[in-house]
Order: sequence, then structure tokens, then C-alpha cells
Amino acid sequence: MVEIVRGPLAESRHTGHAVICDASGIVEAWGDPQALILPRSSAKMIQALPLVASGAADAQGLTDEQLALACASHEGAPVHVAAVEAWLADLGLGDDDLRCGTEPSRDKALRFEMIRDGRTPCQVHNNCSGKHAGFLTLARHLKTGPEYVDPVHPVQKAVREVFEEVTGATSPGFGIDGCSAPNFATTMQGMARAMAWFATAGQREDALSRAAARLVDAMRAHPLLVAGEGRACTQLMRAAREPVAIKTGAEGYFVAILPERGQGVALKIVDGATRASECAFAAILAGMGVLDPAAPEVKRFLNPPITNRAGHVVGEIAAVI
Amino acid sequence: MVEIVRGPLAESRHTGHAVICDASGIVEAWGDPQALILPRSSAKMIQALPLVASGAADAQGLTDEQLALACASHEGAPVHVAAVEAWLADLGLGDDDLRCGTEPSRDKALRFEMIRDGRTPCQVHNNCSGKHAGFLTLARHLKTGPEYVDPVHPVQKAVREVFEEVTGATSPGFGIDGCSAPNFATTMQGMARAMAWFATAGQREDALSRAAARLVDAMRAHPLLVAGEGRACTQLMRAAREPVAIKTGAEGYFVAILPERGQGVALKIVDGATRASECAFAAILAGMGVLDPAAPEVKRFLNPPITNRAGHVVGEIAAVI
Repeated sequence: MVEIVRGPLAESRHTGHAVICDASGIVEAWGDPQALILPRSSAKMIQALPLVASGAADAQGLTDEQLALACASHEGAPVHVAAVEAWLADLGLGDDDLRCGTEPSRDKALRFEMIRDGRTPCQVHNNCSGKHAGFLTLARHLKTGPEYVDPVHPVQKAVREVFEEVTGATSPGFGIDGCSAPNFATTMQGMARAMAWFATAGQREDALSRAAARLVDAMRAHPLLVAGEGRACTQLMRAAREPVAIKTGAEGYFVAILPERGQGVALKIVDGATRASECAFAAILAGMGVLDPAAPEVKRFLNPPITNRAGHVVGEIAAVI
Repeated sequence: MVEIVRGPLAESRHTGHAVICDASGIVEAWGDPQALILPRSSAKMIQALPLVASGAADAQGLTDEQLALACASHEGAPVHVAAVEAWLADLGLGDDDLRCGTEPSRDKALRFEMIRDGRTPCQVHNNCSGKHAGFLTLARHLKTGPEYVDPVHPVQKAVREVFEEVTGATSPGFGIDGCSAPNFATTMQGMARAMAWFATAGQREDALSRAAARLVDAMRAHPLLVAGEGRACTQLMRAAREPVAIKTGAEGYFVAILPERGQGVALKIVDGATRASECAFAAILAGMGVLDPAAPEVKRFLNPPITNRAGHVVGEIAAVI
């Protein structure tokens, strides 16, 4: 799907699977639609469904900003960190109640500031801290214990139930994610189907569909909270020619929800490289007409130059889809 | 060649090419021995040949430590930085005479110290600064100009000539490396042949072969200078059961020189991932009996656990060669 071009040759190559689904099934596919995958953070909208559908979000009075953060892989910039800290405070909880582990902020200015000040990263800086604040909110609502990432905890049992409902299949199992939450396996087609289900949620009236539509609206209203300034999800949502929610996941995963078309898109780079998933996903969305391939904020991901340490352009990343 | 295992599945996969050569040709191969590649920093021993064979190294009185640095992708730890600074001073030159570009030190303690002190990275911190000090030494010896990374500069013409001699073929072209030097293309077989030529250099008396044997001895005598504490090249050279020089390159490249066997090994991970090249190369060398797969310092690369942000082991990297 992607070539890393330097001088006279493509020195590295990335392959992938991708599926576009609508409510009736596969619209288009590359690679193997039946490949078994872990969607990683691309599943965050699914993991946030029980938070909203259960009534926990409304009971806690969560805002759209907080719902966007529940679906986010944020970069731990001050805007994200402050919002999650405030959310935890509203719950009467603190950093120690999170179970996501610590991660240095991906915001360079804050990361350098913390190094200069001798401050070590907290759990709230973890890119998944919004999702975990959502899990804590649901755990509180369900009146359950604090170990909310345990696969048999009611929070994760609720996640598994909705995951299987929206992917349309029993999950064959789960891996433990970077943030310690279970991440359920499905096929490429299962994940694209789930995203098509989100895309058509506004047409349905059941509680789960209403929750899905609300999460998509929250992501679309707050692209900065979903990732961060300059990040692919944020930039590509802003650049899109039509409503779209875009979410990346570790190991080369990306999904998109397209409400106007009622379609969902899923992509997995086989080797897990982010440089390739950003390029290939921009190419697929450009091919669908969702993105303008000539727009600078799209080209940054679709066809980025490779610059070396002296600042010279020495190659490019190019989609070959 | 390599699987990234998490929970019930291999969530990502890496493929590759590898070739083992001796003086008479291919001994064993995986993937496509005729695949065209850029060896990147794995070519540093070849790039250092003219420095020694021309007499420039002896004219400048270079030590084995400096020859090891000329072949190094060092981590910019204080030991590396101080040695390259002293070398430049011996030449009456300074950081500005390098053309490799700046790079933050890969040594965490020094990197954090520089951030705390508000110091920006210099060219001497670039992992290639030893190679560039060697280029400057050769440029001085040849009485040529300062733009030594220009592909038509006598230094790079000399590199191309020896590159084609040891790989046994005309190079189809070059890419510009991360450090701005030309990096010549060859096949996987060409690179493995070159490494076998290095491995048998001690059996020959011509100036180029004597230079090659000296560089291999320098690398073997100073594995710390070739990379850094905890780095694959340094650790695997130290752990080996027999004499070996090991060198990595960007985009998933690795080579080994085995003087006792008269063999050379080259590996390229197709997608360019370092996590896969370290694992696959350790597996190939373990399969050859060069490394003990049960030794902890080998297992760290051959079969490393994947730990998440809370410190839990959630998967592993496994060779499937």
C-alpha cells in the first residue's frame, strides 16, 4: 500500500488490509477482509458506548468535550491534561485511580517543560486517560469496584457485549492494550461493519444507536480533543469535505465513520507502522472523495517528504493503492 | 520473519530478505537475494575503507577507537561525543565543519541534561559523527574541499569505487542518507558478498583488504563505541560465541562479518522496522550458532517481551524464520 522512496528506489514497503462497509456489507476491500485484528485505540468509540447508553454520562452531566476525550488518543497537551484532571476531580478521584499507566506527554513543549522542572509523567498524561475517565464514570454509575480494566469487571463485560453487537460477531478473544484495558479481536470486516453501524446510528432510535450518534457528533465537534494540533485524526477531520469521524489505533490501525454515506472504513498496516497507516488512510479517503489530495493539510499525511537531519528533502512516502 | 504477538493473535507481521555468503557465493538465503536495497549505516565499514587504505588514517595517527567510531552509529553518549570532539580538535576543525546535521543524543541521561540546561543538539551528537570525522580526515589527506558529502567530491568518489569493488557490481545509484552522505544501492547478495569479503580480508595482503581487516578488528575491540550500552550491535558483539562484527542500518538493515567462517550476513526487513530487524538478525545468528539463544543479552533482542505503560507484559516479539 505504501512505499518509502529514497534516491533511485523504494527502500521499504508496507502492505495492508482495508475494508469499506455500508449497512448491507462490503463496498470495497484491499487485502484480506477476514484477517483477524486488534483494533487497539480505533475501538475507543465502541468502548465509550456503554458510558453513554447506560445513562452514566448523563447522570454525571458529561459534556461533548468529555465524550470526545473518552474516544481520544490525545497527545497529553495542556488542554487535554487539564480537562481530564477536572473530570477526575468532578468524580472525587485523582491520578492514582486511573489504571492506564504513565506516559510522557506527546506535546513537545509540555514534555520539555516537565523535564526541565524535574516532574515525572502522570497517568493523566497517558493518551488514553480520557477513555479511562469514562471507564471510571461508568464504574461509579454501576456501583462497581475500582479495578475497571479487569476483563471480568462489569465495565469490560459491558464493552465486550457492545463490541460483539456492533461488529456482528463473537470476539475470539482479547489482548491487553498499552493502557491495560482488554482490546477485543475481530476481523477487518467486523471493524468496518461496526463503523458503518456508527455511521447509520442517527437513522435509528434505540439507546445504543443514540449513544453512537452522540459520540460521533462529539468527536466531530472537538477534533482537537480527539488527538492534538498537527495529529492525523485532528487534521484530517478538519480538512474533510464532508462530516467524518476519524480515529487511529496503535500498530497501524485507522477507522473512519461517514454519516452522510452511511459507510465505515477500517485499515490495518500489516507491520504496524504509523507512517504507512497515515499515508494509506489518507489515500483511501482521498480516493473516496472525502479528502482533497491537493490540500496541504492532507498532503502532509498522503505524500509527506522525508527530510534528513540537515533538513534536506531526501525522499518521500507514497501510497501505491 | 517476525510476529508481534498480543493476546490471542499475531497482530502485526514483518517480512524480510536475508543472505549468508562466503567467498564462493550464497550459502543460505531467505526472501529475494536480488532485491535492490540501500544498506544505510550498515555500509559504514565500506565507507571507512578509503580512510584507511589511502594512508589518511595513519597520516593522522588514528587509533583503533577512532576507526571503530568511523564505522559507528553511536548513541551520542558522553563517551562518543567527547571522542569525536577531540578528533575534530586534532584536525583543527569544529562542529560547524561536519555536514551530518544535528540530532538529539540518544543517551537519555545526556538528552535530558541538555534539555534541562537549555542546550540544543550539535552535529557531534549525530549518530554518524564518527563517520563524518573520518570523511573530514580523508578530505584533509586528499587536500580537497570542505563539502565532502557532495556525491562528486573525491571522498565520495573513493567510497563509490570501493563500494562497487567489495559488492562486486556497479551500483545502480544512490540515495541521500539521514546524515547527507550518498548511500549507494546494491542487492542483498551484493551486501552479503561485501561482508564475506571483509570476513576473509585477513587472508589477503592488498591494501584494501588490510584496511578491511583493521576496521573489523577495531569494531570488535570497541563494541561500545560502535553503538552504545544496551544497543543491539554492542550487546550482540559482546555476547557472541565467536569473533563477529555487527552493524545495523536504518530501515531495518543489519550485517555481520564472521572472520573465522569467512562468511558475511545481510538482512533487510521489508517495511524497515528496527524491532523486527533486531529480532530476525538475532534469530539468524542464533541459528548459525554465533549467538546462544538462551543467553539473556541475546533473548532481549531475539524474543523481547512487550510491556505496556503500567509495566505489565502483554505480548512478545517472536522470530518465525
